[in-house]
Amino acid sequence: MEFQLKKILNNLRIGSISTKRGLIDTPAFMIVGTQGTVKAMSPKELKDIGAQIILCNTYHLFLRPGPEIIKRLGGLHKFINWDLPILTDSGGFQVFSLSNLRKITEDGVSFRSHLDGSLIFLSPEKAMEMQLILGSDIAMAFDECTPYPADYEYALKSSLLTISWAKRCKNYHQNHNSQDQALFCIIQGGMYKELRLRCLTELSEIGFDGYAVGGLSVGESKKEMYEIIEYIGKEMPHDSPRYLMGVGDLRDVLVAVENGFDMFDCVMPTRNARNGTLFTSTGRLSIKRAEFKDDPTPLDEKCTCYTCKNFSKAYLRHLFLSREILSMRLNTIHNLSFYINFFKDMRESIELNRFKEFKNHWENILG
Amino acid sequence: MEFQLKKILNNLRIGSISTKRGLIDTPAFMIVGTQGTVKAMSPKELKDIGAQIILCNTYHLFLRPGPEIIKRLGGLHKFINWDLPILTDSGGFQVFSLSNLRKITEDGVSFRSHLDGSLIFLSPEKAMEMQLILGSDIAMAFDECTPYPADYEYALKSSLLTISWAKRCKNYHQNHNSQDQALFCIIQGGMYKELRLRCLTELSEIGFDGYAVGGLSVGESKKEMYEIIEYIGKEMPHDSPRYLMGVGDLRDVLVAVENGFDMFDCVMPTRNARNGTLFTSTGRLSIKRAEFKDDPTPLDEKCTCYTCKNFSKAYLRHLFLSREILSMRLNTIHNLSFYINFFKDMRESIELNRFKEFKNHWENILG
Repeated sequence: MEFQLKKILNNLRIGSISTKRGLIDTPAFMIVGTQGTVKAMSPKELKDIGAQIILCNTYHLFLRPGPEIIKRLGGLHKFINWDLPILTDSGGFQVFSLSNLRKITEDGVSFRSHLDGSLIFLSPEKAMEMQLILGSDIAMAFDECTPYPADYEYALKSSLLTISWAKRCKNYHQNHNSQDQALFCIIQGGMYKELRLRCLTELSEIGFDGYAVGGLSVGESKKEMYEIIEYIGKEMPHDSPRYLMGVGDLRDVLVAVENGFDMFDCVMPTRNARNGTLFTSTGRLSIKRAEFKDDPTPLDEKCTCYTCKNFSKAYLRHLFLSREILSMRLNTIHNLSFYINFFKDMRESIELNRFKEFKNHWENILG
Repeated sequence: MEFQLKKILNNLRIGSISTKRGLIDTPAFMIVGTQGTVKAMSPKELKDIGAQIILCNTYHLFLRPGPEIIKRLGGLHKFINWDLPILTDSGGFQVFSLSNLRKITEDGVSFRSHLDGSLIFLSPEKAMEMQLILGSDIAMAFDECTPYPADYEYALKSSLLTISWAKRCKNYHQNHNSQDQALFCIIQGGMYKELRLRCLTELSEIGFDGYAVGGLSVGESKKEMYEIIEYIGKEMPHDSPRYLMGVGDLRDVLVAVENGFDMFDCVMPTRNARNGTLFTSTGRLSIKRAEFKDDPTPLDEKCTCYTCKNFSKAYLRHLFLSREILSMRLNTIHNLSFYINFFKDMRESIELNRFKEFKNHWENILG
């Protein structure tokens, strides 16, 4: 993996990550494909809308279908028929948000599967082993996602554990990685700036291909989130990609990009699509609203996606009310196209020194 | 609409129906798109697999979104973005299978909507009016679908009502059709051959663009169904399309084609796909079976559909067990491709005087 910055202006930056499977323009939005599929989309449609990378969840794929099957099928890319870059998370976040009866020790985490209740043990080494089997282009170190709220003592303990685990991940990965897989670490530390900085400093000393900020967008206020983003953004290594995990509200993205972040992921465009909430150049709309019942116009006159070029709001409303699968498909195509184009336009605005206008424009629309 | 027979051999026949929106090769399989969408498919994908006509349900579209909205949106083709032929059923079958508290009089049927319980009245004239608003290429006369079992007296009364309603449909249609919409009638009469024949004779005297057999595949034995198919097939007008409604089990299709039927529709390929039952050149399979858990081969080596060209059984099993939308999509693409190709191969076998071999081959596989 190689990271090249094309332009830097204060903290604003555009660049690209090259991997053997393809280029990722940054700032980048990574589409979430939890179980080895982006919900409602085919790989072909993802390419058609311009997706350059997707994110898959190690925890989910570890439980089902399991590493052995993916290994026998030739790795994740082949299994899911996606030949562009994939980032896999480490499973840390899901262990803490989805599983029951988890028990954390220095060694790793024991937990019960949310699928069948079976007892499973995940450690830094196992998370690395699994991601090497998956063969993702970017792997994430196994971390403990600090919950919100967390007192100082807990956050300190949690970030020290994350640092120690990151070291073990790096060791394991160095000794077993034979396939150009990049390894990113995750900065924890809750809402405490000094813990975030300490975590970042120690992780930088270990050295990783990229640096992620985890444990945000987990229940804290926007003010708290922005404080951490603004603080840690300027402290992070300049020559490596900076990834803000799980943040995808476009208002937050604008703030994070302004503070030097390069990568984002979020289920918002896909989940909202399935719930009938759609993004347009003039704001969000709920497709079930009665006012659209005989509206012959597309969702967004400015959009050139398959949905907007072929279907009216009236039809999309009919499909949504009828709970048809095509509703989820057409809505997802549109929302993902919107996100991909938003990021493309944002990169262009940085290139043309017009990010401030871009941000103002969208802040007015997004409210 | 024009119907041309290309070849006749005993009762076997191949031909084509030309409409202003396109050609339909017969024997034809019509894909069911109940609510104005073929479940899990986009219009583009339907064209890609070679669909020449789809069937939409007047009853469902009458209840939701309702005729006024479709009218304002420029008709059904425009509303759903499908520019090839559409056949609409009359709503008769759904009134009898889905609605509650129906009351049948000579005038029409009062029933309660299965969606919201509202009281609705449907008559031959209303069914015609609705189908003219939809603007389908082929409309069906409003019938009473004789239930199974039905005693002779009920079946007689029911078929007389169907004849009387068909006459009213024809009258209304003749006076209001300004758009080349063809009108087919439906032969009822339960399991009584003489009632079927009487119904057919009287309907032929009225004169329709095509003749359908309704009230089969409603619970009777295969033997009973085949007896009616064999009996009525050879009595039906030779120069008009013959449509066997709601029958799509391929074993039944083979018998019906042998007895001169030209058109079929059935939810089987789409519904089975969503339930994980898939058709292949060597028989049906259930994708959830454990034996497929690490099977790297496609569903069907002989199939060239998007699913078979790009995905393994192992991945399809994973998607099915994970209840992913892509599972329903890929399975539906495959099953519909299979049906479309089955009909294509069947037509070719008739052309080449090899239908008997074709039928034997498939009867062995289908069991």
